[in-house]
Amino acid sequence: MTIDICLSPALYSFYDTDPQTTVVIVDIFRASTTICAAMDAGAGAIIPVQSIEEAEAYKAKGLLAGAERNVARCDFADFGNSPYEYTADRVQGKEIAFTTTNGTQALKVAEDAETIIIGAFTNLKVVADYCVRKNQNVMVLCAGWNNKVNLEDTLFGGALTEIFLSNSDFTLASDAGRIALSLWQEAKADIKSYLTNSEHIHRLMAHHLEKDIDFCLNINTSEALPIYDKKTQKLMNYNALS
Amino acid sequence: MTIDICLSPALYSFYDTDPQTTVVIVDIFRASTTICAAMDAGAGAIIPVQSIEEAEAYKAKGLLAGAERNVARCDFADFGNSPYEYTADRVQGKEIAFTTTNGTQALKVAEDAETIIIGAFTNLKVVADYCVRKNQNVMVLCAGWNNKVNLEDTLFGGALTEIFLSNSDFTLASDAGRIALSLWQEAKADIKSYLTNSEHIHRLMAHHLEKDIDFCLNINTSEALPIYDKKTQKLMNYNALS
Repeated sequence: MTIDICLSPALYSFYDTDPQTTVVIVDIFRASTTICAAMDAGAGAIIPVQSIEEAEAYKAKGLLAGAERNVARCDFADFGNSPYEYTADRVQGKEIAFTTTNGTQALKVAEDAETIIIGAFTNLKVVADYCVRKNQNVMVLCAGWNNKVNLEDTLFGGALTEIFLSNSDFTLASDAGRIALSLWQEAKADIKSYLTNSEHIHRLMAHHLEKDIDFCLNINTSEALPIYDKKTQKLMNYNALS
Repeated sequence: MTIDICLSPALYSFYDTDPQTTVVIVDIFRASTTICAAMDAGAGAIIPVQSIEEAEAYKAKGLLAGAERNVARCDFADFGNSPYEYTADRVQGKEIAFTTTNGTQALKVAEDAETIIIGAFTNLKVVADYCVRKNQNVMVLCAGWNNKVNLEDTLFGGALTEIFLSNSDFTLASDAGRIALSLWQEAKADIKSYLTNSEHIHRLMAHHLEKDIDFCLNINTSEALPIYDKKTQKLMNYNALS
């Protein structure tokens, strides 16, 4: 088996992904962490949509809507993109249409993959265990920021790579995996300090979202395994289904 | 001033580059190193072309041609992509049409930039000195491999970043620069060992090109500053012109 990392949605088409590949989409700050949090809180499904208009249409039909652009919650929406907003009393058993600056766009480019799951530091072990059990090639697809490479999603790729290389039959498929692993090994003793000067930490701090940053850097605090159901085009919690 | 790094030609359009930006194109293994070597050997100009057919057309007109695809020299060509081939007795004062798998493609995406130069480990200091004197924003454009990110070009970006941050008014523009700098600081004590498992080292070793690898990892052995003349669409040696 191979583990590969694609550092931007705009590079996805240049990587060979065989049809059985499991694609792990990551948007650490904050979409993938927030999706896991919503599922831990009992959300029935997350319906990822590309545009604000689609999220508004779902809202008009009576669904809850989470919508964020450039860190801020969209006015019409019930939720923004903070994991703290998706509490059990608000989301338990509910379906939520969800659109964010980068996270939901990454899903679009990978939609032909057989299996798509959502990864975050919070559900790192859950994702790793699932991939090892599944025993297929893995591609980590970093959401990045407007197709630019970012540090935190790359670090997640390194963390997952380290787990695979340490205890199973996985090998690295490309240099991007080597890059991510190197960075993770340097960062892992103190991820938050390592990310101090990163672009998105600055954006979040400017919006006084330090507690979101801390939440998103927790490791293995979530039991959620969001998996994309291609028929219904919804993200479901695999660990709640099975 | 800012220093930024674009890890793949396919990402270039997502980065803001103001019109005065100096773009440094890097393809360590081996196009950018070979261009520097040819200029150190006295080549009058390198004419970068996208396709094999264009290189053949120049050859038919009586020019020398360097052409490589997937590590190997193309049959019709006078030279492949090894820096050792471009010796003074063969290239002194000559113009050479030149096409390689990745290096010449990167030039295409950056062609709107005001200033385009070619960077390699061999001319690292020459490039850094030029950029500091010019005092404009710098974008390192990594040629990569078929638009995939590679380790050696990223490392060069980190090496250049380290110089700028240590002795001038440059700041990092994006996370890609942080990634490259981190990797460089880990690798610089022994670059070749660090690259042992990288993709392109494997390709070159499979073609018995270890001496090319060593050549391409020499630091500050070249006095060449290849600069792209947009009017003539040729690379000239700025340090020979001035």
